[in-house]
Amino acid sequence: MAIGKLYGVGVGPGDPELVTIKAARIVKEADIIFAPQSKKGRASVALKIVQGIIDEREEAPEILQPLFPMTEDAQTLDKSWDEAAEQLYEKLSKGLDAVFVTLGDPTIFSTFSYVSKRLQKKGVEVVLVPGIAAMTACSTTAGIQLTEQDDILVVVPQVDERLSKILPYVDTVVAMKTSRHLDLLEKCINEDPREKEIVSVQNCTMPDENVVQGFVKNKKYFSTSIIKLKK
Amino acid sequence: MAIGKLYGVGVGPGDPELVTIKAARIVKEADIIFAPQSKKGRASVALKIVQGIIDEREEAPEILQPLFPMTEDAQTLDKSWDEAAEQLYEKLSKGLDAVFVTLGDPTIFSTFSYVSKRLQKKGVEVVLVPGIAAMTACSTTAGIQLTEQDDILVVVPQVDERLSKILPYVDTVVAMKTSRHLDLLEKCINEDPREKEIVSVQNCTMPDENVVQGFVKNKKYFSTSIIKLKK
Repeated sequence: MAIGKLYGVGVGPGDPELVTIKAARIVKEADIIFAPQSKKGRASVALKIVQGIIDEREEAPEILQPLFPMTEDAQTLDKSWDEAAEQLYEKLSKGLDAVFVTLGDPTIFSTFSYVSKRLQKKGVEVVLVPGIAAMTACSTTAGIQLTEQDDILVVVPQVDERLSKILPYVDTVVAMKTSRHLDLLEKCINEDPREKEIVSVQNCTMPDENVVQGFVKNKKYFSTSIIKLKK
Repeated sequence: MAIGKLYGVGVGPGDPELVTIKAARIVKEADIIFAPQSKKGRASVALKIVQGIIDEREEAPEILQPLFPMTEDAQTLDKSWDEAAEQLYEKLSKGLDAVFVTLGDPTIFSTFSYVSKRLQKKGVEVVLVPGIAAMTACSTTAGIQLTEQDDILVVVPQVDERLSKILPYVDTVVAMKTSRHLDLLEKCINEDPREKEIVSVQNCTMPDENVVQGFVKNKKYFSTSIIKLKK
């Protein structure tokens, strides 16, 4: 029997209407939906986004929700990705197709890549479907342009000495998960002499979305900040 | 009468299935579809992407297709954006809602911003709807990750001395419309001592899509190149 395909499907930032027609079709047709949890019993945000599409199906898919702990410990992470790949391979080897739903886009800071690499080594065909990424969800929500004309855009997942080296030559910075490194980010941005426009968005396109001019001081939630440096 | 709203709607890279559910709904409901042409008589790519959705409507919308010439002459461009804004304002002031369809996302190198700024000054409410941007369409098509872990991503619309300053500190470069400045781009990338993975995509997700390892030598068509620099 042919091995099933693994689809890495971006489901966008949170609003179920920001799922693409293609992603919706693939979720409707899948045998298996794979949606890792960060905490036992708490469904993933990605799964919640497509739950309405799943509920409309005549035949319910099997939904797998392994635990991907929120840790930076490499050994723990490796173990959870190994287990996830094994769990998926067991299904794929039966000829079933599986959809790994991922928040935003599957090629931008997604855990999907760690699992898919393991399965590709075993000969599994992987199909990627792009999703609306956090950065354009935030810029459209905030009503600001990320880039115009010859603007250079940089996207940073964490702030370290590299940003201060890059900053003088770029026009727009998208800083993700800013609560982790807010003091360093503010210091770095303040050192640039140019006039700035700064907008931060928390839980973008979700019911509890919060748009703030400047940086978000509340460190409880992750947010994305867009910093535009005037010419 | 209330002035109509202007929607700036990203329709993605080319595949009509990569339109979001939200964008499709707004195109279905719009009074006016605004889709600039770069050449008289040649419908815009953005319009073609949503043509199927328009064709399914019971009542056809009015479709406006002004000419936005492919030029870098500031005066000519200003004039065409002024005229477009006037044409749209005439419709909006009658209480009609208009949808400006734009390839990719409306906040990344989109002509939408030049028209919308003019209309915002006149008090028009502008609503932005994100679309799948070229960069993630290309990365998913090529099957490569744009960013993992602490990777820094830079997006450049043209290559100049800024890229060589930034390059040592970034992990991934997305170079757009590379045919315009291919020699300079290759020179700059070759000067970086790191091992590289380079993929270029032309007409991403369209019927004549072309994925090439390395840079595209055919300068006839615009392409997007993704350069990953190994750690």
